[in-house]
Amino acid sequence: MRRSTVVLQRVGKGEPLTPPKAREMLAEILDSVRSDAPIPFTHRDAERALAALLSTEEMWEAVRLSRVPMRFLCAFWSRLEEKDLLAVQDGRLSLTEAGRELASNLCIAPAWEASCDSCEGRGVDFARLPREVVERFREISRGRPEALQVYDQGYVTEETTLARVAFALARGDLSGKEILVIGDDDLVSVAAALTGAPSRVLVVDIDDRLIRFIREVARVEGLDMLEATRYDIRDPLPHEWRGRFDTFLCDPTESFAGFCAFIERGLLAVRGVGSAGYFGLTHAESSLEKWAQIQRFLLESGAVITDIREDFNSYVTWGYVETMRAWSWLPIRVRPDRPWYFSSLFRIELLRPPSVENRRFEGNIFADEEAATV
Amino acid sequence: MRRSTVVLQRVGKGEPLTPPKAREMLAEILDSVRSDAPIPFTHRDAERALAALLSTEEMWEAVRLSRVPMRFLCAFWSRLEEKDLLAVQDGRLSLTEAGRELASNLCIAPAWEASCDSCEGRGVDFARLPREVVERFREISRGRPEALQVYDQGYVTEETTLARVAFALARGDLSGKEILVIGDDDLVSVAAALTGAPSRVLVVDIDDRLIRFIREVARVEGLDMLEATRYDIRDPLPHEWRGRFDTFLCDPTESFAGFCAFIERGLLAVRGVGSAGYFGLTHAESSLEKWAQIQRFLLESGAVITDIREDFNSYVTWGYVETMRAWSWLPIRVRPDRPWYFSSLFRIELLRPPSVENRRFEGNIFADEEAATV
Repeated sequence: MRRSTVVLQRVGKGEPLTPPKAREMLAEILDSVRSDAPIPFTHRDAERALAALLSTEEMWEAVRLSRVPMRFLCAFWSRLEEKDLLAVQDGRLSLTEAGRELASNLCIAPAWEASCDSCEGRGVDFARLPREVVERFREISRGRPEALQVYDQGYVTEETTLARVAFALARGDLSGKEILVIGDDDLVSVAAALTGAPSRVLVVDIDDRLIRFIREVARVEGLDMLEATRYDIRDPLPHEWRGRFDTFLCDPTESFAGFCAFIERGLLAVRGVGSAGYFGLTHAESSLEKWAQIQRFLLESGAVITDIREDFNSYVTWGYVETMRAWSWLPIRVRPDRPWYFSSLFRIELLRPPSVENRRFEGNIFADEEAATV
Repeated sequence: MRRSTVVLQRVGKGEPLTPPKAREMLAEILDSVRSDAPIPFTHRDAERALAALLSTEEMWEAVRLSRVPMRFLCAFWSRLEEKDLLAVQDGRLSLTEAGRELASNLCIAPAWEASCDSCEGRGVDFARLPREVVERFREISRGRPEALQVYDQGYVTEETTLARVAFALARGDLSGKEILVIGDDDLVSVAAALTGAPSRVLVVDIDDRLIRFIREVARVEGLDMLEATRYDIRDPLPHEWRGRFDTFLCDPTESFAGFCAFIERGLLAVRGVGSAGYFGLTHAESSLEKWAQIQRFLLESGAVITDIREDFNSYVTWGYVETMRAWSWLPIRVRPDRPWYFSSLFRIELLRPPSVENRRFEGNIFADEEAATV
């Protein structure tokens, strides 16, 4: 059960809440949330979660707008409910009068969005790609294999993949370049190859279904530069791929070890100074502490971060949503009816030969305390 | 004079260029550019510069599209010209046949853009702000003081300021918050105050004209929460501003010392964990090495980088363009007829109390080897 046995003091009836008391109450709630969600989060994460609850009663919209780890979010909701600050009824989440009073005394305003409708906030217009590329990609995507939980898969919308390719093309990372795609349920290799820009696109993936699918696309579409082969990210990068590419793209699992596995392989696979890498990183499964840890790792590895575009990657809800780890934490167990899982697109560029090792990873590298989807 | 006395070997007539020879030639050119431009740059910067020359003959467009330090770019152009790879004539820059052959053997494609037209690539639609805010801001901006070189000023377009405010509002960094704007020729304080969202907006600036202007706007518009006062960034932050704000915004000078001055003041002025900061960073005046140095500094100071949006900030060409440092390096001395100077918008958030000192800076903190506009 979500409810813990610790019962917090309720807001006393008739006692007027003041800003100092509200801050004290929030601090107390967060202290108790820490026992349920042993991950780093700040009062600012709580502010974001409250701002989301002020602007929507739909649970998945609240997840999306909160931009905090689900592990924290669900534990926080649970404590709010215990304190009668949040009501869960008729499939909706709504702050009670006391909850609104708390938010008001914390000076929290409803979450407000300013994303451009035309490009869904990405800043990139994929329609600048040749129309044939867009149409062929959409057609090909219809036959894609479904996402599998065992490989922590979950693919992005077609618009996302096309925008990612347009973005990489605009950054000069595809034309005339050799590209490595590490794990490709997003089919970014296919969209990249369809542009005709790269001289080589190699997909490495553990999933035989994807390898067969991409090879078949390459054959049918006559994309000679597109190859796919099996590779388990836990194995050291084979010698023949080391220092052979210009750009790598991936969408790593977000445990820190899993993330490092993907990025280390990518950095070892590229030629060195001036080579670029792309990956996604979420708030739903990564605290800002982990973001900072990842950023330190990237800089120490010899890379600079050139771009971070929030919500660039919009994911199609995977079939296994009811068996994902976060499902049991949710106050309302309904499937999402719209995109709710987003990630920021990062681009990095190497400034010196990468200082990472080609180590072997053992065991389950997919999950950590912050994981929600595996 | 731009031309150095070192004359490089020209491409031999009739000798066919091959990719290995092209790479060798580029490496040789870059080695010689290093003597004119003692700043860090990579062969990838040269690729970006060549890609720009393949897509435009207009000098300022080539500056914009190259996304490399002007110090490097102008020295690189000069060497290309010496080697008859680039022709400068009739106010245009054009790669010669040999130049195109070089680019082709380096597998370089013309620079290609994929920015969304609707939002100018920012991903943010400022028209989501109340129409009155947009209209009042445009009206007020007409009376703004002109940019002064002595303060390294150069303001952004009205659309940029409005989009920056919309972005900060969407990130929850303005509503109900106390805001510090460190240096405000962009008038971001005015746009923020017009939304009515912040509880306080304090501008600190060295320029008395701006202080008078902003105070007058506050008076005429009845914006009681908007204040402006004089402050020299080289002085330690006064006690009464320490730990008193939630969010800081600035557009630092880009010498590393100058950059640190702005960010250290900002970090000391905010409350701590969960507080946010915004600033711009260019490619025209900062090598990717400096970007990495800045990113390490931010992480070491206790912040995490949550956003980097390239080309978010578009600057109105300042009146003093003919006296800026880079003017003497240019192959064609014409004023730009469109925006050419852009910066990336960074957002950071504090994860722990900032570990920076409230030190005094001495002397000229505006210029370093990579400076172009001061």
